Amino acid sequence: MSETDQKTEWNETDEQAPLNAPMEEQEYDFGQAEEKLLALQQEIRQQKIPVVIVLEGWSAAGKGTMAGELLEGLDARGYNVCVNEHFGKEEVGYPDFHRYWTRMPAKGEITLFIGSWYDKLCSDLVKGKGKRELERIKLMENMLACDGVVILKFFIDISQKEQKRRLKEMEEKKRTCTLVSKEDWRQNKEYDQWEKVYIHARQETDAPGREWHLLPGNDKRACKKALYETVTAAFEEALAKSKAGDRSWDVPQLSDHEPLETERMQHLQMFDPAQALEEDYKSALNAAQKRLKKLQYEVYREGIPVVIAFEGWDAAGKGGAIRRLTNALDVRGYEVEPIAAPTAEEKAHHHLWRFWTKLPKQGEIRIFDRTWYGRVMVERIEGFCTEPQWQRAYEEMNLFEKELHDAGTVICKFWLQIDNEEQLRRFEARQNTPDKQWKITDEDWRNREKWPQYEAAVDEMLQKTHTAFAPWTVVEADNKQYARIKVLTTVADAMEKALEHKKK
Amino acid sequence: MSETDQKTEWNETDEQAPLNAPMEEQEYDFGQAEEKLLALQQEIRQQKIPVVIVLEGWSAAGKGTMAGELLEGLDARGYNVCVNEHFGKEEVGYPDFHRYWTRMPAKGEITLFIGSWYDKLCSDLVKGKGKRELERIKLMENMLACDGVVILKFFIDISQKEQKRRLKEMEEKKRTCTLVSKEDWRQNKEYDQWEKVYIHARQETDAPGREWHLLPGNDKRACKKALYETVTAAFEEALAKSKAGDRSWDVPQLSDHEPLETERMQHLQMFDPAQALEEDYKSALNAAQKRLKKLQYEVYREGIPVVIAFEGWDAAGKGGAIRRLTNALDVRGYEVEPIAAPTAEEKAHHHLWRFWTKLPKQGEIRIFDRTWYGRVMVERIEGFCTEPQWQRAYEEMNLFEKELHDAGTVICKFWLQIDNEEQLRRFEARQNTPDKQWKITDEDWRNREKWPQYEAAVDEMLQKTHTAFAPWTVVEADNKQYARIKVLTTVADAMEKALEHKKK
Repeated sequence: MSETDQKTEWNETDEQAPLNAPMEEQEYDFGQAEEKLLALQQEIRQQKIPVVIVLEGWSAAGKGTMAGELLEGLDARGYNVCVNEHFGKEEVGYPDFHRYWTRMPAKGEITLFIGSWYDKLCSDLVKGKGKRELERIKLMENMLACDGVVILKFFIDISQKEQKRRLKEMEEKKRTCTLVSKEDWRQNKEYDQWEKVYIHARQETDAPGREWHLLPGNDKRACKKALYETVTAAFEEALAKSKAGDRSWDVPQLSDHEPLETERMQHLQMFDPAQALEEDYKSALNAAQKRLKKLQYEVYREGIPVVIAFEGWDAAGKGGAIRRLTNALDVRGYEVEPIAAPTAEEKAHHHLWRFWTKLPKQGEIRIFDRTWYGRVMVERIEGFCTEPQWQRAYEEMNLFEKELHDAGTVICKFWLQIDNEEQLRRFEARQNTPDKQWKITDEDWRNREKWPQYEAAVDEMLQKTHTAFAPWTVVEADNKQYARIKVLTTVADAMEKALEHKKK
Repeated sequence: MSETDQKTEWNETDEQAPLNAPMEEQEYDFGQAEEKLLALQQEIRQQKIPVVIVLEGWSAAGKGTMAGELLEGLDARGYNVCVNEHFGKEEVGYPDFHRYWTRMPAKGEITLFIGSWYDKLCSDLVKGKGKRELERIKLMENMLACDGVVILKFFIDISQKEQKRRLKEMEEKKRTCTLVSKEDWRQNKEYDQWEKVYIHARQETDAPGREWHLLPGNDKRACKKALYETVTAAFEEALAKSKAGDRSWDVPQLSDHEPLETERMQHLQMFDPAQALEEDYKSALNAAQKRLKKLQYEVYREGIPVVIAFEGWDAAGKGGAIRRLTNALDVRGYEVEPIAAPTAEEKAHHHLWRFWTKLPKQGEIRIFDRTWYGRVMVERIEGFCTEPQWQRAYEEMNLFEKELHDAGTVICKFWLQIDNEEQLRRFEARQNTPDKQWKITDEDWRNREKWPQYEAAVDEMLQKTHTAFAPWTVVEADNKQYARIKVLTTVADAMEKALEHKKK
């Protein structure tokens, strides 16, 4: 990082904001409040309650200072701080909420966002834009709240006069003068307009379990007192609910919005998995791979991220299809993400968290060998999640894919379909070939017994998550060669379409 | 990432290298070789053997192509690919081996490095530099090998004539012409000089458990065959050793080098933990915190990373000292890393891996609440590691800190020393205060019984890891106020010294 970059990154004006302190020190025992919060935090940890704290406010309102005050009452072994203005180069090329989703707290942890997704929203709203962003924010918070995350949002309020005074004072001091930007002065001049926007944003995103709390920024002690009282009360409430086994947040449907539109999809049973390849396999494969190789470079050059998601019956040929795909690609431009049962850390987060952490950047290809759809298949059928969890997951996954799509990502989703009898033949072949025995486990045999339940779940998944922006392709896979060519061709077509669209 | 950046990042010439193929297809059954490797990889996983594969070679030698060929015989559920030329902005500001250490494989995993730490080494050697880097590389590989990592290094060799032919052919084709750089042609012109450097680098870094293997780059099939045969043989050997319980790699001392010099350090028993603070605490604290706040900005501006490491007896006051330190700092410029028992993922790596992943970037302050020294204290005493492991850890930690120091990092290491009786008083006070009970556990009482063992271990640690570049400060901590002022002052002094040094 060059020095100039550093300076521009850490360029927040409330840095040295000279806060007033009309409240008397004796009025409130901060030491005691801190001790109490520390003790409550331990319980939050034991009860595995995830907490998001958002600190927002006017320029020079004292966000940094208040964050520091709050951390005095928290044990570092349980929180993470995320500074919005620090996001830099490492986030370039990802969908814009990637930075937030990947930093959401695990169960029992606290993430403190100093500045947040509201920063960009409010700048946009001031310019008369941001309507869609407002919806996206509501939905992100909604998904977290449904997952049991306690969301506390604070806005530090100061008057136009006070803001002006602070900016001036900062400009006059040698140490802080470089911290005041044109944008800060612009906000001060257009205070009324910003105030409307802030009020609007807070009103629109104030909902049970994710309320806004206004803090009096003019008075440092009163501000800290209100902050501590609110956090303490919220922790106590969450703990009481948790101890009472109250899971009222775990609902089957996301509120706040019209479900995303899905496309018509043929029922799974209607596909005939036995299809013949009508061309010569070797030359068809060769042609498809050549085409893909060329497209990979173009996609790279154009900075298009590509997500290729594979689902299918055990032994349907996912591995073989993926291998034919990767053979065509330059290793330096793709990654295969094998998705197994979630680790302890992954389980402690929202079910989509681990996929947010595995997304491709612009120009990269990410191949998922099994995907987020495990939620509505194995996790549903084996009871690894609650019924409301998998029921709302369809919509969550549509929204997740919509975020990727809107960030320019090409999304191909494959279901590899084979006949029940064909699966048996393949299982037996694996069992009888020494070098292939590792491919077959007892679990595969157990899953096979639940074929009808899986079939129903897969069909429901296809019906509910086949969208224009992230369509499913059912691949008839009794004939492996046919299946591979279909996969490769589908991916190439999707890339080509995205490239054409981009060039327009 | 801007488009221009992307292009320059993926600018390796061996991309489309037109490889010859004089070996006949029928001579070797690649399909069978791939199946066999796939099966061996499963065993490598079960036996939890970590593997590093390095692919190096001349420009246009076909590293990318060979990597692709190798991956055909590997299951994606067990390897990661790391492309040296792709490292970009996310690594700027870290010590230069950070990118490699953080990507080392967990037990049972394979990391394939396409290009590696040898790239920069060899460019430096050609310029007559790089002697120190050569030593650092030997030591990094040595540490990994001592940890049981199987290191396979391949160099793809092509003749000057063949390289010239390929570069020309690439320049003539529209799709590949932009991939040939001036550096590639320069290497071709100075082929003899580069060849000497390559041979020298390989000779110097060829050691048992981390041998170099030369691959014939002129012949694609022969190259792939040699690659498969070598990897297969190495896997078989490692598996045989592992199954026989052979842990001959786990040695108490790193070879290859003179141990780093340590400074004289007074024995732990000689410190009197009862010290009186001779100034007024409140004003001394206030002054130290003001000084630190100012220094934090300077350190940030100058891009100096700061590591502050806390160790000490249970209840010695680490938490309180850290809180007084962080109170002085802007929350947006520091992070506290609480170090607990390693997670499963951390345990599966080299013991320093988790600390490499937590380092500060330029200008950041990272505070470690317990540290890498757990290896030679709790892990040693509780038997969580083998004797050779903790014995060689002193030197490993000195080398780790040397890497940080050489990258400009300020390092402060604190041992908070209290009297045995004082600890008892504090334990009892915690037990008797409701809001503080969470601070005391049965484990604390158990550790207390092992005071003499810990005392000896701590003293050995101080003696063996007190260096000029990363000195220990023993903090007499019976008096909490004295201890806090000493910590804050020591950190401020160290920062100041680094700033003065930088400005020279």
